[in-house]
This record gives sequence, C-alpha cells and structure tokens, in this order.
Amino acid sequence: MWSYQAPLRDMQFVFEHWLQAPATWRRCQAFDALDLPLAMQVLEEAGRFTQNVLAPLNSSGDRQGCRWRAGHVSTPDGFASAYQAYVDGGWPALACGEALGGQGLPQLLDAALQEMLYASNHAWAMYTGIVYGAYLCLKSHGAPWLQERYLPEIVSGLTLPTMCLTEPQAGSDVGLLRCRAEPGVDGSYRLHGNKLFISGGEHDLTENILHLVLARLPDAPSGSRGISLFLVPKRLDDGQANGVRCDGLEHKMGIKGSATCSLVFDGAQGWLIGEANQGLAAMFVMMNSARLHVGLQGLGHTEVAWQNARKYAAERLQMRAPLRPEGVQAQAADPLHYHPAMRRVLLELRAASEGMRAIGYWAAHLLDQAEHAVDPQTRQHASQLAQLLTPIIKAFFTEQGFRQASSSLQVFGGYGYVTEFAIEQTLRDSRIAMIYEGSNEIQANDLLLRKVLGDHGQAFGLLLAQLREEARLGGDWVECQGFAAALENLCNSLAAVVEDVVERTREDREYPYRIAGDFLQLCGVTLLALSWARAARVSRALPETDPLRAGKLQSAGFFFDYLPSRLAQHLAAIVDARATLAFI
Amino acid sequence: MWSYQAPLRDMQFVFEHWLQAPATWRRCQAFDALDLPLAMQVLEEAGRFTQNVLAPLNSSGDRQGCRWRAGHVSTPDGFASAYQAYVDGGWPALACGEALGGQGLPQLLDAALQEMLYASNHAWAMYTGIVYGAYLCLKSHGAPWLQERYLPEIVSGLTLPTMCLTEPQAGSDVGLLRCRAEPGVDGSYRLHGNKLFISGGEHDLTENILHLVLARLPDAPSGSRGISLFLVPKRLDDGQANGVRCDGLEHKMGIKGSATCSLVFDGAQGWLIGEANQGLAAMFVMMNSARLHVGLQGLGHTEVAWQNARKYAAERLQMRAPLRPEGVQAQAADPLHYHPAMRRVLLELRAASEGMRAIGYWAAHLLDQAEHAVDPQTRQHASQLAQLLTPIIKAFFTEQGFRQASSSLQVFGGYGYVTEFAIEQTLRDSRIAMIYEGSNEIQANDLLLRKVLGDHGQAFGLLLAQLREEARLGGDWVECQGFAAALENLCNSLAAVVEDVVERTREDREYPYRIAGDFLQLCGVTLLALSWARAARVSRALPETDPLRAGKLQSAGFFFDYLPSRLAQHLAAIVDARATLAFI
Repeated sequence: MWSYQAPLRDMQFVFEHWLQAPATWRRCQAFDALDLPLAMQVLEEAGRFTQNVLAPLNSSGDRQGCRWRAGHVSTPDGFASAYQAYVDGGWPALACGEALGGQGLPQLLDAALQEMLYASNHAWAMYTGIVYGAYLCLKSHGAPWLQERYLPEIVSGLTLPTMCLTEPQAGSDVGLLRCRAEPGVDGSYRLHGNKLFISGGEHDLTENILHLVLARLPDAPSGSRGISLFLVPKRLDDGQANGVRCDGLEHKMGIKGSATCSLVFDGAQGWLIGEANQGLAAMFVMMNSARLHVGLQGLGHTEVAWQNARKYAAERLQMRAPLRPEGVQAQAADPLHYHPAMRRVLLELRAASEGMRAIGYWAAHLLDQAEHAVDPQTRQHASQLAQLLTPIIKAFFTEQGFRQASSSLQVFGGYGYVTEFAIEQTLRDSRIAMIYEGSNEIQANDLLLRKVLGDHGQAFGLLLAQLREEARLGGDWVECQGFAAALENLCNSLAAVVEDVVERTREDREYPYRIAGDFLQLCGVTLLALSWARAARVSRALPETDPLRAGKLQSAGFFFDYLPSRLAQHLAAIVDARATLAFI
Repeated sequence: MWSYQAPLRDMQFVFEHWLQAPATWRRCQAFDALDLPLAMQVLEEAGRFTQNVLAPLNSSGDRQGCRWRAGHVSTPDGFASAYQAYVDGGWPALACGEALGGQGLPQLLDAALQEMLYASNHAWAMYTGIVYGAYLCLKSHGAPWLQERYLPEIVSGLTLPTMCLTEPQAGSDVGLLRCRAEPGVDGSYRLHGNKLFISGGEHDLTENILHLVLARLPDAPSGSRGISLFLVPKRLDDGQANGVRCDGLEHKMGIKGSATCSLVFDGAQGWLIGEANQGLAAMFVMMNSARLHVGLQGLGHTEVAWQNARKYAAERLQMRAPLRPEGVQAQAADPLHYHPAMRRVLLELRAASEGMRAIGYWAAHLLDQAEHAVDPQTRQHASQLAQLLTPIIKAFFTEQGFRQASSSLQVFGGYGYVTEFAIEQTLRDSRIAMIYEGSNEIQANDLLLRKVLGDHGQAFGLLLAQLREEARLGGDWVECQGFAAALENLCNSLAAVVEDVVERTREDREYPYRIAGDFLQLCGVTLLALSWARAARVSRALPETDPLRAGKLQSAGFFFDYLPSRLAQHLAAIVDARATLAFI
C-alpha cells in the first residue's frame, strides 16, 4: 500500500531553476563535463534503483529486522543483494574523486541520491550513509599509506565504514569516553573498550568493515582534548579476524533493518588517523557530512509522508465536505482531500517537502563550491554558509520529518495505525533522526552559541545577505512582491533577535541556551521562506501551462499565508524565555 | 527501566483543593457517605493494583502481543489473571449503581482509576475502557428485560462489552455503514456484515462478550438517520456460539496487547437497544463517556512520560551545564536536569500532566453533578459544560500525550529509541488516541461547529463565566495576580475569536472548518491556564513547608511565563486562516 516515487521533476526544478546549478558547474573545472541532461540521467537511474530495489524491501525489512547469532549479524532478506546492486551501479563512488575510482560528480547529486535512499528505505540506507563522510575524513586526515590502502575499497564499496563514538556513559558528551588505545612497536595501536549504538557495526553486506573509532591514548588529557581517531578494520590484511566483536543488537522503535551494534574492542589492532589527541577535529569532517545526511533523512520522510497521504486522501471517501472544487457534484461522501483540515495538512506536507528539498540541496551545492569554486572568496563564503546551514538542516528537517509523518498518519485515520499501510513505520523510522549525530538540542546550541554568536555574526551576515538579495529580486515581479516583503521582514526580525541575544547574554549567560531551540526553528522557517520566495520567482521560467508552475505559486501562497503564526510562535517564545527556568 | 508510580498526592490535591469535591459530595444524596479519606483509600488500592499488577505487564504485553488462531484470540501472558484480579477487586463496579451491584462511587473516582489504568498499561486497559459507557448506554436506552439480563454481568465484570461501529468503508463517517439487521418473529434480529478495528472483539478474559453493534434495518433511511443499535452476545443463553466470529487481528504500531479485531456477523442474533433508526443517539451516550476516557489516556501517557524523564534526567550525567543550583559543585559532567533545554522539557511535562489532571477530573466531577446535583439548574449547567469540555479533552489531551511522550523520549537520547527503556512504547501507544473515538479533527469540528456555534454560545458562556470567576478570585492574592490577569486576557481573546468567527462565517462558510483545530488548541491552552491559575490559588491551603505548594507555584510560574508564545501561535493561525485553502 505504501509506495515511493522519486520526485525527479521537482529535483530537476531545484537543480535547473532554484540553484541554477548547471551555470555553476560550467564555472568549476571539476564539473565542466557535467550538464543538466547528464545529471538527470544519473538521478533517473537512482530513482529506478530506489523505487524498484529498495522501496520493496522497506516493509519486509522492518518486519524481519536484523538477527544476531554468536557475533554474526544477518540483515533482512534482500538487503545484501540490494547492496551488491548498489555497488554494481557505482553509487558509492558517485561524489568520490576520479583518481580513486570515483565518478567525481558534485555532492549535490549525492544529496539527491541520499534523499531517495532514505525515502525509499531508511534502514537499508543506514549501511551506506556514512561512506562519503568516512571517505572525506580519511582523505583529509589519513596518512598516505592508509589512504592508498583503504580509500579505493571505500570508493568501490568493497568495504563499509562505521563511526564508533558512543559508549554507554558517553552519548552527547564524547569527552566522557573511556575506550583506550595502546601504542605498539610497529606504529599501530591496540584498542580496548566498549562502543554502543554503532550503526552497521556488524553485518553481512561486505566481507570487511572499517571502524573509525574514537579512543584515548595512555597519556591523553581528560575530556574532549584527549581523544584520538583510529581506523580499525574488522579483518586484518592476513585475512584474520581483528580483536573486535559484536556482542549484541539493539531492539529499536524503528529502522529495524539497520544493525545497531554493541561492539567490544579487545586488543583490536588499529592505526591513528590524523594527529594524536586531535581526533574530534578529524571526526568532525565525517560528522558534518553525516549531519547533512541526517537532515536529508528528514526530507526523505517528509516526501514519502506527502506522497502517501496525497494518494490516500484522493481515494478515501468519508463525509461531505463544506465546499468542493467548482463543477464537482456532491456524492454520498467526498474524498478526504476536499475536507479543509485535510487540505491544510496536504498543503503543509507539500510545502515542507518541496521547500526543504531546495534548502538541503543548496547546502550540498555550497559544499561543492567550497571545494571547487575558482574564486577563493567564493570558496570561503560557501564553506561558512554550509557550516551555518548544517545544524539547521539536521535539526529542523528531522523534526519536520517526524511531524509530517505524524500528520500523514492522521490522514489515514485507523488505517494509519496498522502496519499494512506502513506510514506508521515511516513515523517510527523518522524519530531516530532527531537524536543521533548530535541530538537536536545539541544542534541548537551549536547553531546559536558557536555558529552565530561564536563568529560574531560573520556567517550569519552572509545568510542575511542571501535572504535580502532574494527579497530584492522578488520585488520585481508583482506575484512575488508579497513574498519578498515577508522575507525582508523576516530578515529584520532575525537580525533584531541576534542583536538582542548578544545584549542580553552579557547579563544572563544562560539566555542563549534557553532560546536556542526556538532560534533554530525560526531559522528553519526562514530558510523555508527563502525557499518558497525563490521557487515562486524562478517558476516564471516554466511554461505558463506547466502544472508545476501553478503548484509552486500555490504552495508559496499557502506557505506565506500561514507564515505569520509560525513566526509569532517562535518570536514570542524567544521573549518568553527571558524568564529563567527553575531547577526541578 | 520504565516504571510507574500512581501520583496519589496530586490526585488528592485535585480532589481536596482544586475541585473541593468533598463539599460537593456532601451536598449530593448519592455520595453523602463518601469523604476524602475513603476516596483516597480507594485510590490507594487502585494505585497498588496498577503499579503491582498492570505496570509489570506493560512491556511484556507489547513484546508478546495478541495471537489469533482459528477465530480464538489469546491475550499476552498475565492479562487474563490481571483481569480476574481487577474483577475480584470490584473495579468494574466502581461508578455503577448500587442497585445493580455497583459501588455507586462518583465518576470522578473512576476518572482517577482510568488515568492509572492507562498510564500503567494502555493495551490492557483497552479491554475495560468501554465498560462504563456500555453500562450507561444500556441503562439509559435498553429495554427493561435487556437491562435485567445483562447489566449485572457488565457491572460484575463477568462479561466485557465492545463498541462495533467501524466498517472498512465507514470510519469517521458512520453514515456509510452497511451492516444490516433483519427482524425475526421473536422480536430479535439477525445481523449480517463486517466490522473492523473492534477493540476486544475477541479475547480470553471473559467467557462471554457483549457486542454493541450499529446496523441498518431493511427499511432504514440512508445515511446516519437510518442506523440502529443492537446488543449481540458472543454466546447465547443456551451456551451456543452466536453467529459472530473474529477473522483476524490488526498488526499495529502500538497497544499490541489489545486485540483489535475484524469481526464477521453472519446471521448473529441480537436485540435492539433504544428505538429503530435512533442508534446514533444511543451510541453517543457510550461515545461521550469513551471520549473522556480517551482524553484520560493522553493524561496517563503524559504522566508516565514525565515520571520516567524526571528520573532519568536526574541520573544521567552528560556535559557541563551553563548554570547549576546554588551550592552545587561542578563535576566532569552534570545531570541532564541542570541543562536548560532539558529543564524546559521537564517543566513542560509536569505542567502538562498536573495541569490536565485537574481539567480531566473536573469534567468527570461535572458529570457527577449533572446526574446527582439537587438543583436542576446546577445539573443542566454541569451537563452543558461537560459536553463542551469533552471534545477539548479528547483532542487536546491526546495530542499532548503524544507530544509529551516524544519530548520524554528525547530526554533519554539514544536510550529512548531502544525498547529496553519502554518510553518508545509509550510514544507508539499514545499515537492511537489521536485517531479513535472520533479523530481529533472530528473533535475540533464538533467543538466549534456544534458545541460553540451550534448552541449560540450558551455552553461557551458558562465556560467563560468559570474562567472569569477564577480570574476574579485569583486577583485577591498577590502571588496570583499575574496569573489572574493573564486568564482574564485569555477570556477576552477567546470571546473575541468566537464573535469574529460568527461574523466571518456569514460570508465564508468554510472559515470555521479551517480554524477548528487551532480553536480547539486555544481552548485546551485556556483550560490549562484555568488549571494553573486555580492550582496556584488553592495551593495556599497547603502548609508553607509542603514541597507540593512550592511545586505548584513553580509550575504555574513556568506555565504563565511561556503562555504568550502558545497563544500567539494559535491566535495568529486563526487570523492566517482567513486565506482560503486551495484544493490540491
């Protein structure tokens, strides 16, 4: 009953009109062979893979889950062969450098691929979700011999990496981790300790697994300044098993097809990545990429929630609606999508899904520019903006994913609560994204404390400039003037909030922590406003008869009609939070 | 790890101070033998039963679920013996009339019992949840011989009733139902048709089951005016099986220990309850009671979400907080409950749980007065107010239950997502309450269209008067003046909204449907404001050193500090909704 169709038409709209990516590609030497038809060919292929191979395994993978036996983990039926098809299609290599066997395509294309993977089968995509981050981490911090030895295997998909941070006592606070690494005489290390909640820590998709592990050297300072990063393969080059084993799987609310492992490192041999005690910096290369990916999970959940609600609401007849579209005759009962409460939900689902898509892809496009733009200032600004957007995308998108899945479930009524329609699975799967890779509360603190206040508003100023530029451009077209004016107002509000926070924090240093969550939500809503103001403006490039053009204007209209209440809520909450919070 | 403690102290506070129930009981002949110590003795007993018998079956029941085999349903291990203990304790009889073997206690006590049942084991409590409603329905609409025959069995718990409304094509819209009843020569009827999503439609807790079934007579008008209500026992008096069978169970997101049955009526013998074609009116007696119960589920979920988050947040150490309580020394990491984002969640959980408790119990107390008050006007007003509160409690409480369970899960971080801590079960269980017994969207329409606009504001005027009275009383105490003023403002806003809706609806008849959801939320927040304004005021009756008194003032302070943003959101949304919603 649950189904997924890759939204290729909207993806193309974002690439071609919202981002005008082909023009940027032409300006970068790295992508000068790429054009829109080629990019769309890649996405069409990815669409077929996700629709035909992954989506059919979504429900069955949830029902079957993973099984652990004597340290070995079996993934659900079909997962391993789907992975082989993924490798054969060259998908792990999509955005990796050509010198290492990759396809050298932009991260923008990878973002679209990731959205499709997560939308069609979140649990399956957990196995591949960290690949690009691990590639980046090793490429930027690994010793040359480590790169030579392992990067080609990662790029080809022969092995899969993991990210081993969490320990029972150290979740959000990696500074508390105890896993230790003892130096050996040959330059390698022996790792000892327990890691928890390790996605893909053990599985049957690949022969070998590369664990990227945070641990402490014997003489390391305490806290987060004494953490180093190690590469620990499951199998050593002589084919022998390394000293790491999976001693159990978590039973979880969702993503049941993803093996969430408890790992024991018992003298496992590993190699340092980057400098001693600088593990967090190396890990953050991977983590930033992972956070963008997690945001794209929220986008994927919202997209499937929207697709499935839309289809069901058109088919299910219940009660008469107060109004029908012109020319439609009354029957014994109307389809759900005529009822006002359901129309609001559907319009919101579409506005959230399409609105977030442009923003998520923009962040990926900025990462491409940060790496490949010719002009150094363009590179620097793109990097700063991408850093700023990352926590917003991670937290705002994942909260949307959960909320919109719940809204979609509500459209199905009782049928939404039974497993047959699988929207309940989407809701369960979506919930984890608000927690892992830094909980949404951590993202909110990262955004306001570090990314906005921490750099004295430099990156934030770049974002405001982007918003104001869009408001200026929108002002030229009569249908967009209202949207442009709303966006301009929003900039002013946001700038005023930041000024006020700076001021207030001098007297009340807890204030930014109290408002961080609402500030992040406000930024998220602002990004959606940018998304819809620009979508409405650039939809002019579509033929007047194109239903996508009408749909974009309709969604923008809806979004801006209901924008004031969203702003009112978060702006007022930022004021409410001037009151201190009691210790309970 | 998950645990439940009956919040007896707060229940007593609501009974004694918030409602001043003992004074009301003394004025009703029906309850003049009841006093507070006796009432608390009953609740303590109920607390022991739910903590010691039901709570330990909550997780195991979820893991095991129900099993169907050849028409027979087995409930999870322990459910049947827990039911026997419930019957032996006389709990089904709590609020039923003494003439029928009941204990004749107020519905207020039953509300507290229900909260504990749902909080400790929602799935189990599904089997008993409809008992009081079925009792009321049969007592008010059943023929004398039907009452004589079946009421004592219901009151004693010998049989359990069901409510059979839904069919595959008829969910929210019972007017679409097709199940038919053919009259026989002996005054009984033969029922034919399929019913879906029937909670407790088949199980192993009792020998017999009494199905209350909506069906159509052969000459019935179409739509909802042609529906009649029938009593259809699973077993006939000769011990033979009646023509009704369970042909399957739903696999659901949650409440897995509750048997959600698909029933086939194949010439089952039944008897008419009430008049032909007046089935909806008879069913609504049961439905109104059920809706209040569902609201209490939301309260129960919020309460366990709060208890478990509170405990975990005090124990789990992660990262340093920006501030600590005075005199507390910094350690390597602080407990979660020092971190501002977590403090806000915890304060909100407590304010929601305790705030809703007073309102939910107030509704039950009003039902007692509607039935037993000496003065006819008191009875009438109490009934009108209870009718008005019912959809608010059903929808607002259940949405809170789901949201607060999600907030609580977030406190647990990754541990919240694994089954071991069972807060993920609370989240899954809570989600159904937003759907069944009339979806929350149906409640919103019922509230605004029928209960507020439909009676020209009479019942709504009674509510405003209650709110204004509280605002007046609160004005007398300096610590409550701010709360009282906020409540008064809220009344004015709410009254203005209703006036505006009446006006606007003349030109735009869809407008009330577009704002119904936000209007209901606004009413819910207003009821919480009433709850906290009164709690703060009446907490003066507690000794100054009583931590409950300090806690009530702290919660009221928090609630009113953060009230403006909640109001801003819903008030602005009601304005936003002046814009029409496109057909999508």
